[in-house]
Amino acid sequence: MNQDLRREREAASFNPELLTHVLDGSPESTRRRREIENLILNDPDFQHEDLNFLTRSQRYEVAVRKSATMVKKMREFGIADPEEIMWFKRMHLVNFVEPVGLNFSMFIPTLLNQGTTAQQEKWLLSSKGLQIIGTYAQTEMGHGTHLRGLETTATYDPETQEFVLNSPTVTSIKWWPGGLGKTSNHAIVLAQLITKGKCYGLHAFIVPIREIGTHKPLPGITVGDIGPKFGYDEMDNGYLKMDNYRIPRENMLMKYAQVKPDGTYMKPVSNKLTYGTMVFVRSFLVGEAARSLSKACTIAIRYSAVRHQSEIKPGEPEPQILDFQTQQYKLFPLLATAYAFQFVGAYMKETYHRINEDIGQGDLSELPELHALTAGLKAFTSWTTNAAIEACRMACGGHGYSHCSGLPNIYVTFTPTCTFEGENTVMMLQTARFLMKSYDQVHAGKLVCGMVSYLNGLPTQRIQPQQVAVWPAVVDIDSPDSLTEAYKLRATRLVEIAAKNLQNEVIHRKSKEVAWNLTSVDLVRASEAHCHYVAVKLFSEKLLKIEDKSVHAVLRNLCLLYCLYGISQKAGDFLQGSIMTESQITQVNQRIKELLIAIRPDAVALVDAFDFQDVTLGSVLGRYDGNVYENLFEWAKKSPLNKSEVHESYFKYLKPLQSKL
Amino acid sequence: MNQDLRREREAASFNPELLTHVLDGSPESTRRRREIENLILNDPDFQHEDLNFLTRSQRYEVAVRKSATMVKKMREFGIADPEEIMWFKRMHLVNFVEPVGLNFSMFIPTLLNQGTTAQQEKWLLSSKGLQIIGTYAQTEMGHGTHLRGLETTATYDPETQEFVLNSPTVTSIKWWPGGLGKTSNHAIVLAQLITKGKCYGLHAFIVPIREIGTHKPLPGITVGDIGPKFGYDEMDNGYLKMDNYRIPRENMLMKYAQVKPDGTYMKPVSNKLTYGTMVFVRSFLVGEAARSLSKACTIAIRYSAVRHQSEIKPGEPEPQILDFQTQQYKLFPLLATAYAFQFVGAYMKETYHRINEDIGQGDLSELPELHALTAGLKAFTSWTTNAAIEACRMACGGHGYSHCSGLPNIYVTFTPTCTFEGENTVMMLQTARFLMKSYDQVHAGKLVCGMVSYLNGLPTQRIQPQQVAVWPAVVDIDSPDSLTEAYKLRATRLVEIAAKNLQNEVIHRKSKEVAWNLTSVDLVRASEAHCHYVAVKLFSEKLLKIEDKSVHAVLRNLCLLYCLYGISQKAGDFLQGSIMTESQITQVNQRIKELLIAIRPDAVALVDAFDFQDVTLGSVLGRYDGNVYENLFEWAKKSPLNKSEVHESYFKYLKPLQSKL
Repeated sequence: MNQDLRREREAASFNPELLTHVLDGSPESTRRRREIENLILNDPDFQHEDLNFLTRSQRYEVAVRKSATMVKKMREFGIADPEEIMWFKRMHLVNFVEPVGLNFSMFIPTLLNQGTTAQQEKWLLSSKGLQIIGTYAQTEMGHGTHLRGLETTATYDPETQEFVLNSPTVTSIKWWPGGLGKTSNHAIVLAQLITKGKCYGLHAFIVPIREIGTHKPLPGITVGDIGPKFGYDEMDNGYLKMDNYRIPRENMLMKYAQVKPDGTYMKPVSNKLTYGTMVFVRSFLVGEAARSLSKACTIAIRYSAVRHQSEIKPGEPEPQILDFQTQQYKLFPLLATAYAFQFVGAYMKETYHRINEDIGQGDLSELPELHALTAGLKAFTSWTTNAAIEACRMACGGHGYSHCSGLPNIYVTFTPTCTFEGENTVMMLQTARFLMKSYDQVHAGKLVCGMVSYLNGLPTQRIQPQQVAVWPAVVDIDSPDSLTEAYKLRATRLVEIAAKNLQNEVIHRKSKEVAWNLTSVDLVRASEAHCHYVAVKLFSEKLLKIEDKSVHAVLRNLCLLYCLYGISQKAGDFLQGSIMTESQITQVNQRIKELLIAIRPDAVALVDAFDFQDVTLGSVLGRYDGNVYENLFEWAKKSPLNKSEVHESYFKYLKPLQSKL
Repeated sequence: MNQDLRREREAASFNPELLTHVLDGSPESTRRRREIENLILNDPDFQHEDLNFLTRSQRYEVAVRKSATMVKKMREFGIADPEEIMWFKRMHLVNFVEPVGLNFSMFIPTLLNQGTTAQQEKWLLSSKGLQIIGTYAQTEMGHGTHLRGLETTATYDPETQEFVLNSPTVTSIKWWPGGLGKTSNHAIVLAQLITKGKCYGLHAFIVPIREIGTHKPLPGITVGDIGPKFGYDEMDNGYLKMDNYRIPRENMLMKYAQVKPDGTYMKPVSNKLTYGTMVFVRSFLVGEAARSLSKACTIAIRYSAVRHQSEIKPGEPEPQILDFQTQQYKLFPLLATAYAFQFVGAYMKETYHRINEDIGQGDLSELPELHALTAGLKAFTSWTTNAAIEACRMACGGHGYSHCSGLPNIYVTFTPTCTFEGENTVMMLQTARFLMKSYDQVHAGKLVCGMVSYLNGLPTQRIQPQQVAVWPAVVDIDSPDSLTEAYKLRATRLVEIAAKNLQNEVIHRKSKEVAWNLTSVDLVRASEAHCHYVAVKLFSEKLLKIEDKSVHAVLRNLCLLYCLYGISQKAGDFLQGSIMTESQITQVNQRIKELLIAIRPDAVALVDAFDFQDVTLGSVLGRYDGNVYENLFEWAKKSPLNKSEVHESYFKYLKPLQSKL
């Protein structure tokens, strides 16, 4: 092992294994996770060339092979528990997406949720067995977040008892669905249902797109890959154009709404439950943000411990770059954020399961808050993580720019999270809608509960937003609880300002909707402050559950750093409304520097505790053994440009130019 | 033309052509730039397949072909003026790097600056004629910014009158130089000179690496490509390992230092002038930041005018996304920043030329400030631009993630600017060193001049940093001059805090250097505030020179937005020290929203004024005619995965799995 890393690990103040158990939930979970990970690490069927050296087509091929192998192996190993499937997939996929994945994550669940028993009988077995390879086609070239704007039509023809599917415009072409371009032979298509001359809005249809056996596109179907992207090279995100394409009436998923053979439309009784999937996916994405950021921190911090550069004192050997205050200031707040988001992710998972059980028992009361919370936290954690991964990459200097670092791939695989499953700004505005509703309730004299219960403390009469709050300045900057309180006051103040500004615009504008648009910057700011408060609160509360003293001490420092760094970045928010004083802000900046020094000896152990196997990082710089430079040289030699000693373009273009002289 | 864009252009309050003249410097410059650009746009020799659809090796080949064609065409067209070469290259290269470029931008200039007349006679003609294709090899695998740490050695052997070059360790392997991997046959190598048993530090040597004619690596030389990166796919960034590789004594560049045939080392008289190249490159990078950000804004704003999505009022047609306040808040401050940086870039160019003339006449007095300013502004503009390009990309939603937007390529090509030619944090600390020196001078009773002259106003006796400044709160948020004053006060305050904290650490620590490290977060903050002040000041001053009233009006709004947005983002800095009051900050936030509305009708004309030809944007979304969707579909069809109807991996991996059922 690299001498620097060995020294770092020996000097740590706590046992990272104990912290790993905290992150996994229990020692038993850690054990089982590793067991599953090792199944893959030791399986030659999962080995392949480094994707960085392959062409797009080769990368797609590797992905299909891995997808296929995975299906076989999960059956073989008997992995069926959803969490275990997740571990298995994560290890197997390595910042990596699988073309067949949508069959299991979208096609089958939609069939189960929205199909009748007869429909499930007809399609479930063959889709589980990959006779049917399905995907889910919703987004169109011209329409994403705003579902009502989708243009694809499904017009019922009672004569033949078929739906006629059409992509009437270029903008209506289905665009983006994963696995649609080359892999899938079926798609669940979202289309505007038209029957008896009337449009009934979006409904889901099972549409065969390629012939089973030959895999050729069926007549009336135009399907293909949407072209190269920032990342997701392995994925055949696809387009689908349908021209008077006919499917039987039975292919409409009819568990809720129905179209009778004569074309009569039967309304669904309720479809609140489709809500649930969206909430699940978004709460899952919070955990993914934590995971991606943890990976990036692992790479950047290990590399910063191994890399020696520049000098602090002239003449002395070059220090580890982790000893520079600026490097610590770049990385440790991100490390603290990674831990914060790990705990937010765990909370989201628990809460989802709890509320889901309530829903199963018919209690939908907590669903609106859960929806608001997942929307906002999905946006908050993904925006933060997005910028943080790049900060980690740039903290690795030149080598961060090379694919040897693994960081560019982590970034390009993560960044779409800010856009998909609900564009982040739209998500923040959904949370804001809930906050405004809660604010109105409080003003109407009602109590609100859950994470917004702090609004109950709002005085009911105020005049000017800037006079909103004169809080007693008693923040103790060494107490996570007191800092949580400060974040709560900030959120209260920004919610109130947004509400007042909104009221003000409503008075001056013709419509509520225009007023909403003209307040939306304030509304997003309020949602961000709310989400930041939630993250701080959950981190503080987590500390209470940590039994091991040394683990508690180091997590407490991280929690303080997370809180104080946020205050320092948004000092204006804490100074306004007198939540904190100028001299407290000065103390915050000083305390942050002390915390950097306090965390420094444990930095490597803190990323070791995330327990990423080298292979999941796909990173030369982030190796556990710290053997960076030799490996980098070996890695580089495999570059596609190094296949021959002299590249043919020399003879084609440069040599002729030389001989002309 | 797209109806939305036509309407936008008709509604503009000013003539963008006039603004283009401002940006180019004069109507004549605009005319000549377009003339040169059209040479390339209309030349079939420069046409090639979209690089997004090619493999790395194919992309490299296209780049070599373009490099070679460019050399021929520039001779043919008689383009020799450096600025015209720049226009030509920019148009020709399209967010794109050329493997042969280093021969002209680094090899030849270094030969001219550091070679003797005899050396120039020997190598200049053949490098201009590409008989010699040269590059510049400085960075090593283990050593970047800190030059003294470089490990490559050149040991003089008086017996044969040769230097023996060695890469003694893995970390000493030359790493990163552009064009080194496959293209170049010579490199100027930076190595520790050792003669008569003594090391004299870094010197430059001309090293043949490949045989002319066969292009094979010479014995003793190991050379190749360093592997795939985030971007720069076209560039063969290379490695170079030398094992007892001998070159004649005459291959050391000896204009300044010399090694006599017997091995006697002759010190250079002065080498301050090597300073100049670095300053030139960095000041050039400020303009490049402006240009990259302008491109990103052009794409995002044109697309936001064409894209219709979601709804403001239910039931009404989907609005242009540019009508959402949140979208304006994402993009218009970046547009204002692009203009700010355009003016900073123009100022840097002028200043560099002015001071360079002074230097030519022996006057080095302004060099330290120029050095400090270019270092800081390079870091300040590149960090800001880096984040801003990604913000533009994400503002384009899903399509921003596709290479069809052109934005991922702009980002990955730009982002290394934060690292190369001086890592940004190191750059900020160099500026801080100058600020601290100026601060000390003021405290010693001397006056300082240039951009730091505001420090002359510092009172000499103060006690606590947080009590530093009680400025009269008279900022007029509608006056660029008054806002510049506010930024000046902020810079003064943060410079003073950094200086006080540094003094304080010096008292408590053993060494000045340790104290410097423990204050470096404050020092970077001070430099950022200084650079931000410079940008605001230059923008405000530029307004005075704009004669056309309508152009002046719209630029004034952009300038205000640039100033106010910065204040809103860093409100804490302006509240502390009482530069502004809480109620002023509230007004700032309100005024920003008004400015978004004021700028909205001119947004498209403001990006049109940058005058990027469609082809230089390499973007389907950013097209001048706004014809986005049809083009996107045509573009996608060319995806490498669409070459065959059915991808072979189906038969290899998926079909066998199906038949097993």
